[in-house]
Amino acid sequence: MATSTEFSLPEAIAVLTRTPATVNALLRGLPDIWVLRNEGRGNETSDTWSAFDIVGHLIVGERTDWMPRLRIILENGEARPFDPFDRLAQFKETQGKSLEQLLDEFARLRKENLAALRALNLEPEDFTRSGMHPTLGVVTLSELLATWAVHDLTHLHQLSRVMAHQYRAAVGPWRAYLGVLQCQGHSA
Amino acid sequence: MATSTEFSLPEAIAVLTRTPATVNALLRGLPDIWVLRNEGRGNETSDTWSAFDIVGHLIVGERTDWMPRLRIILENGEARPFDPFDRLAQFKETQGKSLEQLLDEFARLRKENLAALRALNLEPEDFTRSGMHPTLGVVTLSELLATWAVHDLTHLHQLSRVMAHQYRAAVGPWRAYLGVLQCQGHSA
Repeated sequence: MATSTEFSLPEAIAVLTRTPATVNALLRGLPDIWVLRNEGRGNETSDTWSAFDIVGHLIVGERTDWMPRLRIILENGEARPFDPFDRLAQFKETQGKSLEQLLDEFARLRKENLAALRALNLEPEDFTRSGMHPTLGVVTLSELLATWAVHDLTHLHQLSRVMAHQYRAAVGPWRAYLGVLQCQGHSA
Repeated sequence: MATSTEFSLPEAIAVLTRTPATVNALLRGLPDIWVLRNEGRGNETSDTWSAFDIVGHLIVGERTDWMPRLRIILENGEARPFDPFDRLAQFKETQGKSLEQLLDEFARLRKENLAALRALNLEPEDFTRSGMHPTLGVVTLSELLATWAVHDLTHLHQLSRVMAHQYRAAVGPWRAYLGVLQCQGHSA
């Protein structure tokens, strides 16, 4: 029950399909303290992110990361490195938008991207095709798709932690039992 | 934007209301690798938990933890310590059930509990009423309610981590960038 598993396209798509509805159920209509506050402490590149910022980041990924990189692998293999991903683009791109607009935009883009992914009719022999990550080096198509799914999960992990942080004082002595309040973030 | 916030009953209820739909959107219909696998390594009291086990645990909390303890505070104050909570009860109680049954049961119990909570018409002066936790000592009513909400978030945090673990190998070199794969769990 514990072995790390092989990549399977239908299993990865099962996660990717559910993320917009999950984030929507968690966040839509929540009071601002849960949506707009972050974890306060800054790091070398930016302040920590709020739930709003995280949804913005997921949108940027749909636009510029996952499917564009998949197409680069299919069209150019390792010959053309991926464009670097801008981890801070959401701070510009979400200005003036509401959380509800971001949730709708994320759901629409994810749906379009999954339709495009399915239309490629990838076969298991495609999973080992390789591309060139600008800092990680050679990566495979299946690693890219597995990362897309786990990237959703890493930001769900971050969302729960950023929200829990807002009640760090309010829980009193129970703090000791709540694992999410011990989480150091590990980058996301 | 970063200050830990005061407890507010409507804000806590806003989180508590959304958790069943969030967990449902994340898990219902997922392939078994995401639902039935855990993180493998055991600890002093049990193996790690699968998504299925986590939903079972949330159900046990609805039955035996949050509202029963709230009623003990209102009826007995510090005079009667809370009954200890059985963190492993779900392993018996979920036997023979499907994930879909557990998700339905959690949603139903949460709805009933929030209706009962609202019916109490708690006022801010009730928030400082105190009770006796069997190991933590004196706790307040607002700390109990804040902990109920953060407990949801700690298990959402755990769910994302347990699921991500299944693709630990599949993501290849991207492992270094995915914070959820660095999370040590901190008890949940």
